[in-house]
Amino acid sequence: MDHGATTPVDKEVMKEMLPYFDIKFGNASSIHCFGKETFNAIENAREKVAKLINCNAEEIFFTSGGTESDNLAIKGIAYKNKEKIGKKGYHIITSSIEHPAVLETCKYMQELGYNVKFLPVDKFGIIDLNELKKSISKNTFLVSIMFANHEIGTLQPIKEITKITQENNILFHTDAVQAVCKTPVDVKKQKIDLLSLSGHKIYAPKGVGALYIKKGIRPQTISHGGGHEKGVRSSTYNSPGIVGLGKACELGKERLLNDMKKLKILRDNLIKNTLKIEESYLNGHPDKRLVNNAHFRFTAVEGESLNLRLDNKGIAVATGSACSSKKLEPSHILLAMGLKAEEAHGSLRFTLGRMNTQEDVDYINNTLPEIVGTLRKMSPLWDR
Amino acid sequence: MDHGATTPVDKEVMKEMLPYFDIKFGNASSIHCFGKETFNAIENAREKVAKLINCNAEEIFFTSGGTESDNLAIKGIAYKNKEKIGKKGYHIITSSIEHPAVLETCKYMQELGYNVKFLPVDKFGIIDLNELKKSISKNTFLVSIMFANHEIGTLQPIKEITKITQENNILFHTDAVQAVCKTPVDVKKQKIDLLSLSGHKIYAPKGVGALYIKKGIRPQTISHGGGHEKGVRSSTYNSPGIVGLGKACELGKERLLNDMKKLKILRDNLIKNTLKIEESYLNGHPDKRLVNNAHFRFTAVEGESLNLRLDNKGIAVATGSACSSKKLEPSHILLAMGLKAEEAHGSLRFTLGRMNTQEDVDYINNTLPEIVGTLRKMSPLWDR
Repeated sequence: MDHGATTPVDKEVMKEMLPYFDIKFGNASSIHCFGKETFNAIENAREKVAKLINCNAEEIFFTSGGTESDNLAIKGIAYKNKEKIGKKGYHIITSSIEHPAVLETCKYMQELGYNVKFLPVDKFGIIDLNELKKSISKNTFLVSIMFANHEIGTLQPIKEITKITQENNILFHTDAVQAVCKTPVDVKKQKIDLLSLSGHKIYAPKGVGALYIKKGIRPQTISHGGGHEKGVRSSTYNSPGIVGLGKACELGKERLLNDMKKLKILRDNLIKNTLKIEESYLNGHPDKRLVNNAHFRFTAVEGESLNLRLDNKGIAVATGSACSSKKLEPSHILLAMGLKAEEAHGSLRFTLGRMNTQEDVDYINNTLPEIVGTLRKMSPLWDR
Repeated sequence: MDHGATTPVDKEVMKEMLPYFDIKFGNASSIHCFGKETFNAIENAREKVAKLINCNAEEIFFTSGGTESDNLAIKGIAYKNKEKIGKKGYHIITSSIEHPAVLETCKYMQELGYNVKFLPVDKFGIIDLNELKKSISKNTFLVSIMFANHEIGTLQPIKEITKITQENNILFHTDAVQAVCKTPVDVKKQKIDLLSLSGHKIYAPKGVGALYIKKGIRPQTISHGGGHEKGVRSSTYNSPGIVGLGKACELGKERLLNDMKKLKILRDNLIKNTLKIEESYLNGHPDKRLVNNAHFRFTAVEGESLNLRLDNKGIAVATGSACSSKKLEPSHILLAMGLKAEEAHGSLRFTLGRMNTQEDVDYINNTLPEIVGTLRKMSPLWDR
């Protein structure tokens, strides 16, 4: 129930990847037959990734994962106009609920002298389009808004956002790490200029990702070296990872509608039953959310304690996002949505995956109320 | 015969990695049992990498590979002193024969306003220690010299270099991507402050590497995000890759002396026989070179053509390094050593690996002279 943190590699993906570790192990940049074999496999994978989001293969650039894709998109576009580094007022717009890979990169841009606007969100975690419009100035060169939030699963109004960025001739980047393979993503229809995705969230391995960069846009590299990926991202190709990512994208595209349908049924059942617990609430938007995401808060219960007790029962869930789960601060996302610190601390994320079944959900439905009850009995904040 | 470009993943490494793709697939940052299992595996791998180069586990930082390690070392140390960015005279010393991951990063540092000295090398590819001493100024904060060259295999006098950097209180980084597991590397004895290594050169998978950072030194991150690796390198842990790297380092340490002995015998046999070909020469140093490297030039023969014809016979070799093998310029390394462009173009690299046998070498010894002869017959430059 923690597929938002990571997913197992799909069996079919494993099968496709395996030969590239020790049999077809050539370096894609070598000119001999071992190299060519790997090169062809990578280009084949590139096609598959491109098809998932409806772009051309040449617009896909492989990276080591979502974090690198986000760093490359934002820094790469910002550095491209080097002469403007340090000029106050040179302007990036993002949201206050981004993943740290975007948020921390944008904060770093501030340190370098860029002006960054962190758009507020409403109680569902959706940005205010009027606020976006008002924030745009002649110095704005990039808007980066995530496709779907990694904690609460809220989907942003991407088409409405890109209508605004296109009218103002501003580049639009989206962190779609949580969105791809769980909601339709089409960079042409949705008019997206740069899009980050990651392998390990979509049943491909960890350590591989991609950045879609619309033809005609060329960020400055942030990885200097041998000049791979047309000079945009140097490093020996992670060929098994890339082949795996390609296969996962192919499967993700094929299975999208079925996966969405199945996950939504399970998720809705989980939400319906969990909300029967006294003083339990759904965080995020009731409909505009990822089909696999159910994010709750429980009055007078600490998410951390709940997490550990569920873990003891064999149920893996998350409090914040995985990468910040060991920090003790309340989620910046929940706070941005207007929740109090104690409400944020009482929150828990369930993210279902392809292998989950109704039996899994039934087990949670039968387990969760008792644990919440036990913890409340121990809580000084619960005096009912 | 192209193990300098990449290596197959060792069977034992594969076995160790495999469960981490789809069974033990947790995100190391998650607090539940799936996360803890992965976390422990990563820390175990960290110990093994540390043992290979004789440092402490906490001094190992995992990356996506050699290129990222080099970028992180150089940029991270440079950016750490942000206030000095742009100050002319702020000084990095490197060599003229570095891998592009160091060379291009240093050129980028120049663009940012840093002063970079590219030390010349002698005809064997060894830097001049007096030149190094003379180049040091009070503004020098970093010396980055590779441990062993990726084309010609020349080993640099690391201990002599670090004697100088230590006396001058300057940090020393070395790109040891080609060196580890092929020559003894001991960061304590050799007094190294930062060291880059890569998985896929040592029978671990592509897409994973590490940077050793001596305790007390903390480069600024170049990968902003969730704060992994004590904030030095954000990105979800590539747990299978890291586990594989750990195992490969363990095996590399165990097998080092045997591997070296075996490779040297094969390599020396290859050199002895190849030099029987008329007007053939060994590039690089006769002794101070990696045990698996044999780098030749043949008068009036194009390396590229030789490469393709050997490929047709099932022998994979390299002209330049893999990542620059599709470029047509002569190797910057061979030019720096004083070779003429046509001599550089007539060069070929053999890099032996753990699985090569005397039969393989015999096959080359029997195949190469005829191919060189055929190509010379077709060459207008060969009129004997």
